[in-house]
Amino acid sequence: MIESALYLFPVGLSATPPDQVLPQTNLDLLRQVRYFVVENLRSARRFLKSVDKTIDIDSLKFVELSEHTPISAVPSMLDPLERGEAIGVISEAGCPAVADPGADIVAVAQRRGFKVIPLVGPSSILLSLMGSGFNGQRFAFEGYLPIDDASRNKRLKEMQLRIQRERQTQIFIETPYRNNKLISELCAKLPGNLLLCVASDITGPNQSIRTLELSKWKNERFDYKKIPTIFLLFS
Amino acid sequence: MIESALYLFPVGLSATPPDQVLPQTNLDLLRQVRYFVVENLRSARRFLKSVDKTIDIDSLKFVELSEHTPISAVPSMLDPLERGEAIGVISEAGCPAVADPGADIVAVAQRRGFKVIPLVGPSSILLSLMGSGFNGQRFAFEGYLPIDDASRNKRLKEMQLRIQRERQTQIFIETPYRNNKLISELCAKLPGNLLLCVASDITGPNQSIRTLELSKWKNERFDYKKIPTIFLLFS
Repeated sequence: MIESALYLFPVGLSATPPDQVLPQTNLDLLRQVRYFVVENLRSARRFLKSVDKTIDIDSLKFVELSEHTPISAVPSMLDPLERGEAIGVISEAGCPAVADPGADIVAVAQRRGFKVIPLVGPSSILLSLMGSGFNGQRFAFEGYLPIDDASRNKRLKEMQLRIQRERQTQIFIETPYRNNKLISELCAKLPGNLLLCVASDITGPNQSIRTLELSKWKNERFDYKKIPTIFLLFS
Repeated sequence: MIESALYLFPVGLSATPPDQVLPQTNLDLLRQVRYFVVENLRSARRFLKSVDKTIDIDSLKFVELSEHTPISAVPSMLDPLERGEAIGVISEAGCPAVADPGADIVAVAQRRGFKVIPLVGPSSILLSLMGSGFNGQRFAFEGYLPIDDASRNKRLKEMQLRIQRERQTQIFIETPYRNNKLISELCAKLPGNLLLCVASDITGPNQSIRTLELSKWKNERFDYKKIPTIFLLFS
């Protein structure tokens, strides 16, 4: 029988078959969990069906935990752990609790002393860092850059400083329809000898991970519009 | 036939069987690669045998790339890519190029425009972040803390500031025989209401991921001496 714990199940980043990006252990554990906390009910059901068509999804219990869920609703989601059952957390894509709302339920589980078991799966942050050739001994993920001009320029300056002084790789994302604009902006605002890695459709059929100096990106033809993409800067 | 590219193959963090922590795709690709750049020859051979006992290891070509390899030796390691072959990079443990010497060869491959394909696998940084309950929207991996007192205290202050001002989770490691000392040091030097997550033996049989306030760690009994452990701070 499966051990009582909060299991964090990663999900593929694109429509790749689960066994291409998830270890067999995850798939075996998924089949044993009866209670799921999910970011989105429809995509969680679709994911479970892709893992095993024979799973009887109607016999499972689901509760939604999204960015819109009030924090006060979180503690009772852990009740099955009190009864010695297992809970699975499933995000829309990627690893629960990393650039994703799952962290709240993990924090509550830790506070109450429940066992938390994170499982291996695809993370565009980690995969793009591996593929960039940048420093993996020190790096920071900054999420989205601020939108208003002053804070945005300040953040870009700060990232530049941390690359220079700390040799810290800077990783960040953008709303996908603004990807092309962001690259032009970086070319315009930062020194041409900084290196930019653009990693798009990670684990997908059109995966591309390219590292070039900003002065070269300036003259490149590219189109990352609406494609899930992650950006890394280093020198 | 396997596509010509630099494949980055993660390896288990402890002696867990490969299919517990690696997707089937990695194992299928590994069997097709004839040329490997490895951090340590013995452990790479052991890893390949654990993936598939029938692999004829003597028919494969290996070259070592460790922290002692001069950077001038790196470019020629990519020669098989010029001939349209595939190269596999294998670290001692975890993900190549993250907290690991593999980044150099990836950087050279990117500079020469070769395709780089990072594969999914266990990263103690990512798994501990998932399990900590801390902010996964902004985080930094700092590697080892400086050893000399002045720089070390300065770094601790800086990490505290980045938690407060940027809500950035701080992740770092220590030489394993000093793990217990580090926890006592953090308790002594930082505010008691900061949260410390200690994640040890990640993916191993004694995996433990515990988040407590520093004031609670102070009165806890623990022993992480010589156990691979990663530390995370947040508030």
